Amino acid sequence: MIVKDIKTITFEDNSAYPGVDKQIYIGSRDGSAEIAMRYFSVKPGQSTPYHSHPFPHLVKIEKGKGILLDKDKKETPLEVGKVVYVNDNEMHCFKNAGNEPFDFICVVPDRGEK
Amino acid sequence: MIVKDIKTITFEDNSAYPGVDKQIYIGSRDGSAEIAMRYFSVKPGQSTPYHSHPFPHLVKIEKGKGILLDKDKKETPLEVGKVVYVNDNEMHCFKNAGNEPFDFICVVPDRGEK
Repeated sequence: MIVKDIKTITFEDNSAYPGVDKQIYIGSRDGSAEIAMRYFSVKPGQSTPYHSHPFPHLVKIEKGKGILLDKDKKETPLEVGKVVYVNDNEMHCFKNAGNEPFDFICVVPDRGEK
Repeated sequence: MIVKDIKTITFEDNSAYPGVDKQIYIGSRDGSAEIAMRYFSVKPGQSTPYHSHPFPHLVKIEKGKGILLDKDKKETPLEVGKVVYVNDNEMHCFKNAGNEPFDFICVVPDRGEK
């Protein structure tokens, strides 16, 4: 059993994705062998990659205004109070659509955090 | 890909656990075959069961003041800004320690939501 203060959780090297900060709130380093809970903060004007991968995302918006792009680049607005499920191998992108950070929790199976 | 407004998510029948309301933010009904994200709200004076089970919990506190009990009933205070990892088969209990609802996100593998 581990209790952590999120203020003490360091930022990962996420330099491959400029403008996107990442923390692993709970993951394999905590003994969580199956699931990882990550926190992402996307700066204004930035976005996560438009991509797909063979694992799902369970997302809960925490702060700011965003846009979700689907496989057809259809846009869905996102803000606090919304949750998103992205299936395995679905194209997706989370874009900041505001002037403040756009933050969300993103849960993945452990293989998505390797 | 599914986007949901949490205000539209119904409450589960959680009558086996009085004083604890439960919503499944994302789960198998949404096509999430591996992981479920649930939201719990524990009323003042109430708690989740003191128990263990063969799956982990990944918890993020959302509201209120709580106490986590471990296998020795040692108490750890919980509030917004804390995350908790409970391993498979560890005894645990989440108690409301305040006068307002004590709420948290609790992520489990799908077998924990069957």
